[in-house]
Amino acid sequence: MIARDELRIETKGRGTHDLSRDVQRIVNTSGIDTGMCHVFICHTSASLMLSENADPAVMRDLETFMSRQVPDGDPMFTHRAEGPDDMPAHVRSILTQTDLNLPVVDGRCALGTWQGVYLWEHRHAPHSRRVIVTVQGD
Amino acid sequence: MIARDELRIETKGRGTHDLSRDVQRIVNTSGIDTGMCHVFICHTSASLMLSENADPAVMRDLETFMSRQVPDGDPMFTHRAEGPDDMPAHVRSILTQTDLNLPVVDGRCALGTWQGVYLWEHRHAPHSRRVIVTVQGD
Amino acid sequence: MIARDELRIETKGRGTHDLSRDVQRIVNTSGIDTGMCHVFICHTSASLMLSENADPAVMRDLETFMSRQVPDGDPMFTHRAEGPDDMPAHVRSILTQTDLNLPVVDGRCALGTWQGVYLWEHRHAPHSRRVIVTVQGD
Repeated sequence: MIARDELRIETKGRGTHDLSRDVQRIVNTSGIDTGMCHVFICHTSASLMLSENADPAVMRDLETFMSRQVPDGDPMFTHRAEGPDDMPAHVRSILTQTDLNLPVVDGRCALGTWQGVYLWEHRHAPHSRRVIVTVQGD
Repeated sequence: MIARDELRIETKGRGTHDLSRDVQRIVNTSGIDTGMCHVFICHTSASLMLSENADPAVMRDLETFMSRQVPDGDPMFTHRAEGPDDMPAHVRSILTQTDLNLPVVDGRCALGTWQGVYLWEHRHAPHSRRVIVTVQGD
Repeated sequence: MIARDELRIETKGRGTHDLSRDVQRIVNTSGIDTGMCHVFICHTSASLMLSENADPAVMRDLETFMSRQVPDGDPMFTHRAEGPDDMPAHVRSILTQTDLNLPVVDGRCALGTWQGVYLWEHRHAPHSRRVIVTVQGD
């Protein structure tokens, strides 16, 4: 059986959004008990990750780390059509994930206790982001 | 239904190859309308990514970034059997992707407008790279 | 057909564990001949990767690289509840993989000659890590 739905996330600029509840809701609605849940982001300047879901400092520290690794406006970047955060957003995207696969067990995503599904907006301006969720199984 | 095919990419050394059309062709041939397409590279010194497909400067900037992050010949690396780009190629591989999963919707990979499927050769010498494409669904 | 099993890995602290044989055993037991094998780690401070399986120096060099990129005790990190390796472990996790998908061909994971499935423990203390393996196909 295959069920599919889409999420539309209106970001407020650079930062993370917890999608765990939305993804779980789509799994519930699918009626699939055992299988896989696939989460896919249709963009190259925002990305996905599974990360710690308890302490908000983790998200702030991830942002601090990435900003240092891939500085906005770094003169080595020539692709600047949309500004100093344009190319850094693409780099941050390829260093994280475009798609995640999660086991579905007993009708739920079998995430670990501390795991959450996050969208990471890498642009400073607000964007409308499309995420496709596919549930496959029995 | 499961369909599988292989791509053989003859690289000319470090650089990227757009596989989007080849992957889409395999999905077409499979006759699968809705499901998932999985792209897998059988190597540890070349990798995959979904990245921006419009401005060639993006690929050049990704290369510039990676070359700076993981410099060829860095004295910290002891695995140098195949030369100064041997270990950097493995590191670049683990920082990007070995496999990608793409939703198949209406008989096509549901890529975003600006998303392309890329193979990234990390070695300087030309290599023959094997990519396994699996399409599952109805 | 869907088959699922779990691995429990008792790590001795930071370092890598080759899971290739355990994953292959689960594929064998499933009786599935053609399809996909999904490997998922239920944690955010240990991760997965496909990497070179022949020269132990590769794993040492990967560790050297990561320790330099994401130094333990870096003062930029504020999430330190569990010590100087707490936040670096989360960063190392998001830079590598939480899940891997491997093609199953003729009843075996179709890994390349030099590819192995590795768990990477990022914490210095020993941990008990849970890995869910799902095999789907015919």
